[in-house]
Amino acid sequence: MEKKSAAVIGYGNVGRYVVQTLRVSPDFEIAGVVRRNGSADCPKELDGIKVVDDIAKLGKVDVAILCTPTREVEKYASEILAKGINTVDSFDIHTEIPALRRNLGEIARRHDAVSIISAGWDPGSDSIVRCMFEALAPSGVTYTNFGPGMSMGHTVAVKAIEGVKGALSMTIPLGTGIHRRMVYVELEDGADFNAVAHAIKTDDYFAHDETHVMQVDDVRKLIDMGHGVNMTRKGVSGITQNQLFEFNMHINNPALTAQVLVGAARAAMRQKSGCYTLIEIPVIDMLYGDREELIRHFV
Amino acid sequence: MEKKSAAVIGYGNVGRYVVQTLRVSPDFEIAGVVRRNGSADCPKELDGIKVVDDIAKLGKVDVAILCTPTREVEKYASEILAKGINTVDSFDIHTEIPALRRNLGEIARRHDAVSIISAGWDPGSDSIVRCMFEALAPSGVTYTNFGPGMSMGHTVAVKAIEGVKGALSMTIPLGTGIHRRMVYVELEDGADFNAVAHAIKTDDYFAHDETHVMQVDDVRKLIDMGHGVNMTRKGVSGITQNQLFEFNMHINNPALTAQVLVGAARAAMRQKSGCYTLIEIPVIDMLYGDREELIRHFV
Repeated sequence: MEKKSAAVIGYGNVGRYVVQTLRVSPDFEIAGVVRRNGSADCPKELDGIKVVDDIAKLGKVDVAILCTPTREVEKYASEILAKGINTVDSFDIHTEIPALRRNLGEIARRHDAVSIISAGWDPGSDSIVRCMFEALAPSGVTYTNFGPGMSMGHTVAVKAIEGVKGALSMTIPLGTGIHRRMVYVELEDGADFNAVAHAIKTDDYFAHDETHVMQVDDVRKLIDMGHGVNMTRKGVSGITQNQLFEFNMHINNPALTAQVLVGAARAAMRQKSGCYTLIEIPVIDMLYGDREELIRHFV
Repeated sequence: MEKKSAAVIGYGNVGRYVVQTLRVSPDFEIAGVVRRNGSADCPKELDGIKVVDDIAKLGKVDVAILCTPTREVEKYASEILAKGINTVDSFDIHTEIPALRRNLGEIARRHDAVSIISAGWDPGSDSIVRCMFEALAPSGVTYTNFGPGMSMGHTVAVKAIEGVKGALSMTIPLGTGIHRRMVYVELEDGADFNAVAHAIKTDDYFAHDETHVMQVDDVRKLIDMGHGVNMTRKGVSGITQNQLFEFNMHINNPALTAQVLVGAARAAMRQKSGCYTLIEIPVIDMLYGDREELIRHFV
């Protein structure tokens, strides 16, 4: 089998798991990792992998897997697509997805490349489930319940509050899309817990949810990258009421994001030029192997 | 919106639900129903719908929805595709799907038409979930647990046994793909219950499962078209173990089959000519409406 060559752009949490995943994917080889600092202070586990500060310094790249902060996805994807290289990312600002798709789609078509965006788990694989639920029962309500798990956005919001040294915001699902926030804070010397708790509870990130704030000595001892989803739909197929659907998962968050990104990288090489979200891609395109064998196995 | 014209081929249980579903689908109109007997003894609920004994007697048809017995799917699909009309079906003999796909694919490509096969719930929407589970965690085991619900195949097998007047075989999920069979039989006058129970338990349909046989006065009083699925996967994303996924549904069986068929009919008009299973089709293609609006809503 001819292996496809993937570059990993950014080497934070997700980038680390993408490298692990590519290493066990029989149809991929790693062209290299692109980090701002290049090979300076390079983590030991990257021994044997080319580490550079610019994708242009790598050899042939079939697909670039973007593991940068979400806000930098458009900039990097635009540059890389303009070189005719396919890109995938896990861009996660739901409201900005249609605009990103339009912008990158234009660049991708102009340079005969493919971009698959928002290919994590939500947005991403959860989007496939939500879309399928609607196809199975077009009338009804779908609830997406997150957790229990760490919310990156909420944790960052707490860290920005004065007097907070370290923080962890856990999302707890209460059903029907309602969530409780369990916030653990480590305070700076001399900070007032009551003032911090008040600031958190009145912050726009927390004001609309049931929020509990607790003080701890060392927030790092609480960190766990597990996360979960419970998605339900009760709806109508044709004119038949009360059709019930449910999807659950309990997963390591960056590991699943990395696996979806690698599946999307595979799928990118099977689409016409343009920009796609996962619901626009046949699920089979995320898998490697003989297509008829896969159909025999899954259908 | 220009409506697409669908013909319903066969008017048994599934055909009835397909007509109901097309009636509430804003982007479809019903070209007509094709029954062996044409409009003779036509059920009252078809008033106002053209009922014929040959699809050639209908006007323009964009897609034919096959609701015939599974064994007749290939014959009808071949004839209809040869007229350049798209087809969808819920062919459910898992082992014969690759051959059907190859045969119908050849005819479809020759006549510039599209066929989507095995578009019910299993095979069908369950196949999408199974395939997605594998993409999310490529190593691991998926278990598909059916029920509680009536098994058509097992019920037919019981009815074929001497002394049986009426039968119902219920499938009860015991987890990890193991099923219990609860069999209710109504006996012919003079039949020996013990002999019938023995014949059932030694039949190849039942010999490998835990099977309980019970005698009832009127099996029709037990019939319920609800069914269910519980699908689980515990697997590995990259090198991260213990990723847990679960899909559940409790549904009216023919109503869900009909809704999937109508979604597939919509998708058929969006593919290049050829034959496809549902895992080869983008999920979004099963929905009607503005594509960017759908992406905004589901991704």
